[in-house]
Amino acid sequence: MTKHLDRRHFISSTGLATAGAIGLATGDAARAQVAPEVGSTAIAPGSTILFQGDSITDAGRKRGVRGANNHAALGNGYAFLTAAQLLVDHPQAGYEIYNRGISGNKVFQLADRWQQDCLDINPNVLSILIGVNDIWHHLNGEYDGTVETYRSDYHKLLTETKDVLPNVRLVICEPFVLRTGAVTDKWFPAFDQFRASAKAVAEEFDAVWVPFQSMFDRAVEVAKPGYWARDGVHPSPAGAAMMAQAWLRAVGQ
Amino acid sequence: MTKHLDRRHFISSTGLATAGAIGLATGDAARAQVAPEVGSTAIAPGSTILFQGDSITDAGRKRGVRGANNHAALGNGYAFLTAAQLLVDHPQAGYEIYNRGISGNKVFQLADRWQQDCLDINPNVLSILIGVNDIWHHLNGEYDGTVETYRSDYHKLLTETKDVLPNVRLVICEPFVLRTGAVTDKWFPAFDQFRASAKAVAEEFDAVWVPFQSMFDRAVEVAKPGYWARDGVHPSPAGAAMMAQAWLRAVGQ
Repeated sequence: MTKHLDRRHFISSTGLATAGAIGLATGDAARAQVAPEVGSTAIAPGSTILFQGDSITDAGRKRGVRGANNHAALGNGYAFLTAAQLLVDHPQAGYEIYNRGISGNKVFQLADRWQQDCLDINPNVLSILIGVNDIWHHLNGEYDGTVETYRSDYHKLLTETKDVLPNVRLVICEPFVLRTGAVTDKWFPAFDQFRASAKAVAEEFDAVWVPFQSMFDRAVEVAKPGYWARDGVHPSPAGAAMMAQAWLRAVGQ
Repeated sequence: MTKHLDRRHFISSTGLATAGAIGLATGDAARAQVAPEVGSTAIAPGSTILFQGDSITDAGRKRGVRGANNHAALGNGYAFLTAAQLLVDHPQAGYEIYNRGISGNKVFQLADRWQQDCLDINPNVLSILIGVNDIWHHLNGEYDGTVETYRSDYHKLLTETKDVLPNVRLVICEPFVLRTGAVTDKWFPAFDQFRASAKAVAEEFDAVWVPFQSMFDRAVEVAKPGYWARDGVHPSPAGAAMMAQAWLRAVGQ
């Protein structure tokens, strides 16, 4: 992880590779030296990147847009912030980025729409953040699924995905909650079992793991839970921006 | 501008100051060393920051929200991306950030709503991006204002602002267009006079100047104009992200 602190990484992750290449603002000599760093990326040029999940991924995205990199269709959450950073850092990479998160979804609801909302898009990089509704709706008495249901449904979804897209790079995001708003003690320890199940599935399928819960656990030492997610589930602008940074680091950007 | 390349700046501008403070992801020893850098900022803690302008600032923001740092009310353009970066970089700064851009606005239309949409908010930092409609609507025959109207209206608006808010820090953003979509040769050289007028007003009021046009002029050497703004006026996610980076650099973040 120390690569996250070297100069090359900062240049890549701040978009100043681009800035250097194009002499952003005033193109001073110092920044011009950044230019050779341009294009360093862990996601291959020409990649199609798909963000899948629930309301945290959805983030108010416009429906019915077919094209990639569409501003309104990316929503205004971590998927949009991650996409915007990838697109400004690598303007020559030809990335095609999609968001197909749908508010309220649980794993089985991803499966119900997987052909059109994932397999047909044929992503090279597939990022999934799912799980909070799998427990929340159970706690609300609206869903009879358990952590075993979550894990088995998740395993089945990724098995099907790998069967059709054997070369897809999987990025599994850790489900997370902050102890405020809608998140009460009754969520625990069950929620920890959902997180563990997501990690187990990620390891089974050799996916990149994005440790959002440990990130937010440390974030609440700096600012109160509501600063990062008012209701404990849906990230604030600051929470979404921190998620985008963590996602980019996890995939090696 | 060389500060933009030193390590401290990268830490500050990437949010890894926060990351270091909270041991983001795995909190390795190397990142832990970043912690002392937390909080370095050119915008004083407790500042109220207001983004004003037209559709580029508006960016689909939700209307009627009174509170600061509201996700939907910040839209999904450069103002949101800038706000998200400020809020994740400085979780203890207590920034209160507002977006009051309105699509289609020209300078006189900012003036018409200035009391409630600026003076009543009482910002410490006031960022304005205005001008593209002042010329566009004139070219369309919908508005009889000229570059002289733009400059005199802008001068009057900032004079009134400084009379009521003598200590406000002004950030004037350069109007910009990219030569694609709606932007044809008939925009020039008139558009360059609008840019020069904005800069003259910025200098007169000792404002921070954000050189968006020179930034995009260099960006089109790396990717075609439509990559940064499909219609030549409204930025793409990549264009908006580059604007946020330039804004943060201009104010010394």
